Amino acid sequence: MSKNFEISTLLDYYGMILTDKQREAVEFYYNDDLSLGEIAENLNISRQGVRDSIKRSEAILYEAEEKLGLMKLGKVLNESLDVIKKNIDVIDELNIKRYRSNDINESIKVILAELEKLRDI
Amino acid sequence: MSKNFEISTLLDYYGMILTDKQREAVEFYYNDDLSLGEIAENLNISRQGVRDSIKRSEAILYEAEEKLGLMKLGKVLNESLDVIKKNIDVIDELNIKRYRSNDINESIKVILAELEKLRDI
Repeated sequence: MSKNFEISTLLDYYGMILTDKQREAVEFYYNDDLSLGEIAENLNISRQGVRDSIKRSEAILYEAEEKLGLMKLGKVLNESLDVIKKNIDVIDELNIKRYRSNDINESIKVILAELEKLRDI
Repeated sequence: MSKNFEISTLLDYYGMILTDKQREAVEFYYNDDLSLGEIAENLNISRQGVRDSIKRSEAILYEAEEKLGLMKLGKVLNESLDVIKKNIDVIDELNIKRYRSNDINESIKVILAELEKLRDI
């Protein structure tokens, strides 16, 4: 994972624990690709202030991940959801081609809806 | 959810963000049901120190949940896993009784293993 992408992902998980100013600076820098000078102007603080804020924020995000491990957990969850989805698709295809059970079809639909829901949490 | 159980659950999710002393005090109090006096003796601090530490820790745990919502997320995840499990059981039973497909059986086994894994994350 590139560092930029990693920070963006950590922001998704832990953005709420930063102050508004910190979060804005990191979002401008990593998500919107603004320069330190541009961010300084937007936030009305010095370039060095922006640099310090981003460094501090990165440390907070990495510390949160070290303690809570949400990014790692999200990866495990998504991998599991992939495996479940793949196997539901196998059952679905077999059912469509061979068994044509409405009950199986209904259960598959419910499961697929739950998998979609879990993708977004 | 009783407050005691809620704090214990929050500890499972966020215990790592407390200091060792804070975590010990809260665990003694909420998980082991020790009195403030007993905890004070164990940790070699004053009764008032224990009380302050527990109060401070509770505030940190509730603030973490407000910002990150892991306890709520865990509840949503577990409810979804229940629904998926129930529907996999329906498919499994239909398959055992009527269709007897080894391929469906294999896919069900893989899915059940993943569901078990997700129960523990």
